[in-house]
Amino acid sequence: MKKEARTEIPRKAVYRLSVYLRCLHRLENNGIHTVSSEVLARAAGVKSTQLRKDLTYFGQFGTRGLGYEVQQLTEMISNLLGTKGFQPVVIVGVGNLGRALLSYRGFEREGFEIVGAFDLQPDRYLVEQSSVDESAAKSQSKVKLAEWLKAVKIPIEVKPMEALPKVINEHLVKLAVLCVPPKSAQEVVNQLIEHGVLAILNFSPIVLSVPDEVTVNNVNLAMELENLSYFINE
Amino acid sequence: MKKEARTEIPRKAVYRLSVYLRCLHRLENNGIHTVSSEVLARAAGVKSTQLRKDLTYFGQFGTRGLGYEVQQLTEMISNLLGTKGFQPVVIVGVGNLGRALLSYRGFEREGFEIVGAFDLQPDRYLVEQSSVDESAAKSQSKVKLAEWLKAVKIPIEVKPMEALPKVINEHLVKLAVLCVPPKSAQEVVNQLIEHGVLAILNFSPIVLSVPDEVTVNNVNLAMELENLSYFINE
Repeated sequence: MKKEARTEIPRKAVYRLSVYLRCLHRLENNGIHTVSSEVLARAAGVKSTQLRKDLTYFGQFGTRGLGYEVQQLTEMISNLLGTKGFQPVVIVGVGNLGRALLSYRGFEREGFEIVGAFDLQPDRYLVEQSSVDESAAKSQSKVKLAEWLKAVKIPIEVKPMEALPKVINEHLVKLAVLCVPPKSAQEVVNQLIEHGVLAILNFSPIVLSVPDEVTVNNVNLAMELENLSYFINE
Repeated sequence: MKKEARTEIPRKAVYRLSVYLRCLHRLENNGIHTVSSEVLARAAGVKSTQLRKDLTYFGQFGTRGLGYEVQQLTEMISNLLGTKGFQPVVIVGVGNLGRALLSYRGFEREGFEIVGAFDLQPDRYLVEQSSVDESAAKSQSKVKLAEWLKAVKIPIEVKPMEALPKVINEHLVKLAVLCVPPKSAQEVVNQLIEHGVLAILNFSPIVLSVPDEVTVNNVNLAMELENLSYFINE
C-alpha cells in the first residue's frame, strides 16, 4: 500500500479499525464465519454506512447479500495495523504511571512487546506513596525502583537513558510510550526521534512538538476523569 | 450555571479546559499573574481564536490589552471541572489494569479520591504473569489479590460487588472507573447506574449502552498503540 494513499485516511477511521478487529475476534470465537455490515456495525457502535465507508478506504468490499468473511477481514485489518507479529515498544519514564503500565500486561496480549524500560534516574528511591493510613506509610522503609519491580515480579531491568540508542537499534523500535514528567518530556522525545522512533504514546500532560513524519497519540488519564467530572458537576 | 446551557458546550471544549488548567498551573508556579490569550493558547497548542471562543462558552472574557488573570481563570476552570474539592471515585475490576490504576497515584494528585475498589471475585488468586524467563515464572507461587496489594503497599481493600451500593451512597459517588472484562462490563455498568453513578471512565474494550444522562469516556490503551502501529507500518 502506498504511503501517499494512506495519509488521506482519517485518524478516526484507523481507531475504528481497532474496534472492528475486536468485534471480529468475538465473532470468530463464537464460530461465526460471515457477517453483514449491519451486524458488525451494530457491534462496533457505528452506522453501517460508516463501516462500509471505512472498509472501502482500505480496499475491502463486502459481497452484496453475503457480507464480509470474518477470517479474511480479521487478517486484512491485523495486517494494516501491523500487529500480526510482535511490535517492539520501549517505555521511557518509570514513575508511578510507568510502573503501572509495566505491571499491566495488556499490551503484550495485543501484540506489543516491551523490549526496554528507561528512566532518567533508574537508580533512585521511590517516593513514598501517600497512604490512607499516614502513620503506616511513614513507618515503611524506602524502596529502590529495581526492588519494587522484583517485588511485583516484573522481569525487566530499568536502564539509564544512555542505553536507549542501543536497544532501539537492536530491536528496530519505532514505537515509544512516554511517561516522564512534563519538564523532561520534550527533551526525551527529541532523543527518541533522533534514534528513529516514529510514533509516541504520550502520557505526559504537555503538548509535544514533533516533525511531520512522527505521530503522537496523547492519553491523559487525569484529564479523562476531569472531563467526566465536568459533566456530573452541578 | 444552568443545566440546559451546559449541554450545548462541545465535548472537546471541556477537554481543552483541562489543558488550559495545566498551563495556568505552570504559569502560576512560575510567578506569572496575567497572561495574554496568545501566550496561553500557544502553551496549550491551540489557536488563540479557539481559546477565546472556548472561554466565552463559560462566560469568561479577557480584558483587551491585559489578557486574563491567571489566578481568577484557574479558579473558574477548577470550579467548572468540579475538581476543587476531592471528587470520590470507585474502581470496578481489579485485574491487571485495575491494579495498575490503583498503584498509579496520579488521580489523587489531580483531585480524585478512590473511595472503593470492587471485583467480581475479590478473593481470587492472580493469574501468573507471563515472564521473559518462563521457568522462573513457573516456580513462583500463586498470590492472592489482597496479598499483592499488601506487597506493593496499596492500602485499599478490594470488596465484592455486593458492597457497591453502600459505598456509593456513603460517599455520594458519581464517577466510576471500569476495568472489568468485556463480558461483564454491561452488567456492571447497569448496576453502577442503578445506584446513582453518572459518569464512567471505561477501559473495557466494548461499546457500553447507557441512558442519556450518563456520560462515558472510553480509554483503550492497546487501541492507542494499535493506532500508532498503523502509522509506522509500511
